[in-house]
Amino acid sequence: MLTYSFDNMGDASLYEHLYKCIKNDIIHGVLTADMKLPSKRSFAANLGVSAITVENAYAQLLSEGYIYSIAKKGYYVSDFSKHLAETTSYGEDREVLQPERPVYFADFSSNQTRPDNFPFSVWAKLMRETMNDKNNELMTRPPCGGIYELREAIAGHLRQFRDIHVSPEQIFVGAGTEYLYGLLIQLLGFDKTYAIEHPGYEKIAQIYDSYQVQRCLVNMDGQGIRIDELESCQADVVHISPSHHFPTGLVTPISRRYALLSWAAKSDSRYIIEDDYDSEFRLTGKPIPALQSIDLMDKVIYVNTFSKSLASTMRISYMVLPPSLARRFLSEMSFYSCTVSNFEQYALMRFLREGYFEKHINRMRNHYHKQRDYLLEIIKNSPLSSYVSITEEDAGLHFLMKIDTDIPDALLIERALQKGIRINSLSQYYTAPPENAEHIFIINYSYLETAHIPEAIERLYRCLQE
Amino acid sequence: MLTYSFDNMGDASLYEHLYKCIKNDIIHGVLTADMKLPSKRSFAANLGVSAITVENAYAQLLSEGYIYSIAKKGYYVSDFSKHLAETTSYGEDREVLQPERPVYFADFSSNQTRPDNFPFSVWAKLMRETMNDKNNELMTRPPCGGIYELREAIAGHLRQFRDIHVSPEQIFVGAGTEYLYGLLIQLLGFDKTYAIEHPGYEKIAQIYDSYQVQRCLVNMDGQGIRIDELESCQADVVHISPSHHFPTGLVTPISRRYALLSWAAKSDSRYIIEDDYDSEFRLTGKPIPALQSIDLMDKVIYVNTFSKSLASTMRISYMVLPPSLARRFLSEMSFYSCTVSNFEQYALMRFLREGYFEKHINRMRNHYHKQRDYLLEIIKNSPLSSYVSITEEDAGLHFLMKIDTDIPDALLIERALQKGIRINSLSQYYTAPPENAEHIFIINYSYLETAHIPEAIERLYRCLQE
Repeated sequence: MLTYSFDNMGDASLYEHLYKCIKNDIIHGVLTADMKLPSKRSFAANLGVSAITVENAYAQLLSEGYIYSIAKKGYYVSDFSKHLAETTSYGEDREVLQPERPVYFADFSSNQTRPDNFPFSVWAKLMRETMNDKNNELMTRPPCGGIYELREAIAGHLRQFRDIHVSPEQIFVGAGTEYLYGLLIQLLGFDKTYAIEHPGYEKIAQIYDSYQVQRCLVNMDGQGIRIDELESCQADVVHISPSHHFPTGLVTPISRRYALLSWAAKSDSRYIIEDDYDSEFRLTGKPIPALQSIDLMDKVIYVNTFSKSLASTMRISYMVLPPSLARRFLSEMSFYSCTVSNFEQYALMRFLREGYFEKHINRMRNHYHKQRDYLLEIIKNSPLSSYVSITEEDAGLHFLMKIDTDIPDALLIERALQKGIRINSLSQYYTAPPENAEHIFIINYSYLETAHIPEAIERLYRCLQE
Repeated sequence: MLTYSFDNMGDASLYEHLYKCIKNDIIHGVLTADMKLPSKRSFAANLGVSAITVENAYAQLLSEGYIYSIAKKGYYVSDFSKHLAETTSYGEDREVLQPERPVYFADFSSNQTRPDNFPFSVWAKLMRETMNDKNNELMTRPPCGGIYELREAIAGHLRQFRDIHVSPEQIFVGAGTEYLYGLLIQLLGFDKTYAIEHPGYEKIAQIYDSYQVQRCLVNMDGQGIRIDELESCQADVVHISPSHHFPTGLVTPISRRYALLSWAAKSDSRYIIEDDYDSEFRLTGKPIPALQSIDLMDKVIYVNTFSKSLASTMRISYMVLPPSLARRFLSEMSFYSCTVSNFEQYALMRFLREGYFEKHINRMRNHYHKQRDYLLEIIKNSPLSSYVSITEEDAGLHFLMKIDTDIPDALLIERALQKGIRINSLSQYYTAPPENAEHIFIINYSYLETAHIPEAIERLYRCLQE
């Protein structure tokens, strides 16, 4: 039977480690198409781990398409692994390494924007105007931070909607926040310790790991990231999303924000990276000021993106550096070219300047508000309602749904997948979720097709009845 | 008088170190607008360096706009340094940290594409068609390597024009080669030693330094990068442009290419990064096969860009990984989103697929051929011709012009600047140029305005007569 070592697994949890081992063997062709995987029970016994660990690993592989399951028979390796064409054979019928992405009836895990929400006709018009008016500018290399007029427009937007007062010179535009995080590591230093939220976006940890810098996971309490743990792990830089934490949905209150600023003020090398990724979509209540706007010590690096508010496939993000760091960036890193095409920078500049962005955000906020209310209404009127309670529904584009059940999260997730429903549990975002944790699920509603909602909730309900 | 320490200057040459010190002081406001800089002679005496070192540093600062000169009076700090707006003041009249870029009558240092050469109407048509046809695809997150159809189109292009046979899965699209180099460091390892060409593009060294990896400068001989030095510096990865080296213009012959492949074959950790940046523009003679196409050991990572062939402001580059590295990328780094917008990926796919790219390249090759021949003709018929000899004029978009003169390079560069002509000398690309080196200048002709060429050559001639 398959055997993997659990030594050297680093920070990973047991299920995560197992998931990675199996995934690697599939990618490298050790496990081949349609090979049957061991049953959960016997595999667990063989490895000396709990059945839940194996279940979690299988569920993850299943959701990513690496394996498939046949009811009452078991789990099999997906048929996508005849690998890259070798350099010596170029048949037209060669197979693709990346598995086809499965299409879900409803995907509660996706925070993509829906195609029908993108303002295609306005964007096409602005792109056309840009190409008519700006031939010379379109072909002129912009400064490393991006086209000045776009950065002016972003500064204006931040002033008006977020009460953030910065000069365009502090704004650096780049092709996605992931890219900007990489620049920040280069700017702040490879010798620094970076603290990230636990639980949190897996990708943030992956980026810091890919840059091979020291990072520590800091737990959250009811107010946000824990300051005592920040101190004890000797972090230099803390990377947080205080406006709307993923996945817990927590909004960090003003008191903890000030505490974070005081933490940062204690040493020259300390900085806060504030990822404000979906602050535009706070649905009710007065927004809490951004850390950036209450920072008097130049300790906050503000990061935001148009990928969430406009289109996830248009890679335009920006960061706002405190003046001292902006100067250092210019003196040490201005050799880097801006990674966003001039065409999209100028089109976005017009989009902001001519008021389209504001209109778009308002339209989307209404749409999401309705979508959320409709979804809550459907849940309320479904038999599911007697099993669930909803929290954190006011900020951003997801909420939490606690299910009162004895079914393990991984099993529920798998049952849902078999019904075409993708959903993630909060426990998946912990490196070591407590075995007796509550069954809390993350409900992203930005990518749901409205017409599918009633049926999706009905299917979720049926998962509890099997 | 100004004093700088020359300790801890690392790999930098004396002039480069001095240039950086002064630039930093200007950026940080230590040296303020219109402050007079010391005369070259007295400054050199004070610092204990040669006058040529100071001259070189001043010339560099002048060419970047940090200082200006007044004939017979001296050098002054430019008036751009009232810095970033402080976070507490947001006057509308705040000044910009980045200096205005000077406009040159002729810029022999630029390899940008000219606005009039970009196929705006075709691109506008393709963008329009893309937005009409592809609404769903435009909003769907592509795989980490980019949109599959674009990678197929690139694979087709490589097969047809470069005899490179690879599968689309080996191709990874990214927002510029600088970004791809960063990914490669993450993939190949922070613990590796990276060898780069000396002389070479300054930016390549800057990127490796910014990632804080070990790098060594390896000298070139008449055939390309020196294998003996590669061995002695214990490089793991060598980063080269064998098709057309910048700045020397050298094309590495086939024998050295095979020697490089044997060097790489000697250890598992060895790889060659082949930057093929302007191979499309080889003007005469049969092209030498890419290293990638003669590599049987999966040791070559091929990198190319559309920034050179299409528009320098459209950030679309790609790398071709050997299958084993492609698999590793997918298993370890596929969490990264592709950094190029779907809109431009689909438009470029059509541009390639529908034959526009081929037409564009042919048109540009003719244009550059004519431009080069015209420039050579003007030089030949000018009084400058008795002072100069031309070499390396057949590959890519620049050639070398040796001037028979006693005037130091830095002085000639400065005289040219005062006449609105920007030009770089080969010596600037060496960390320590030999004091008695020949006076060789780099003539990029892709960005020249054709109508300015006769006057530009006349002005260059006058620089020799002062």
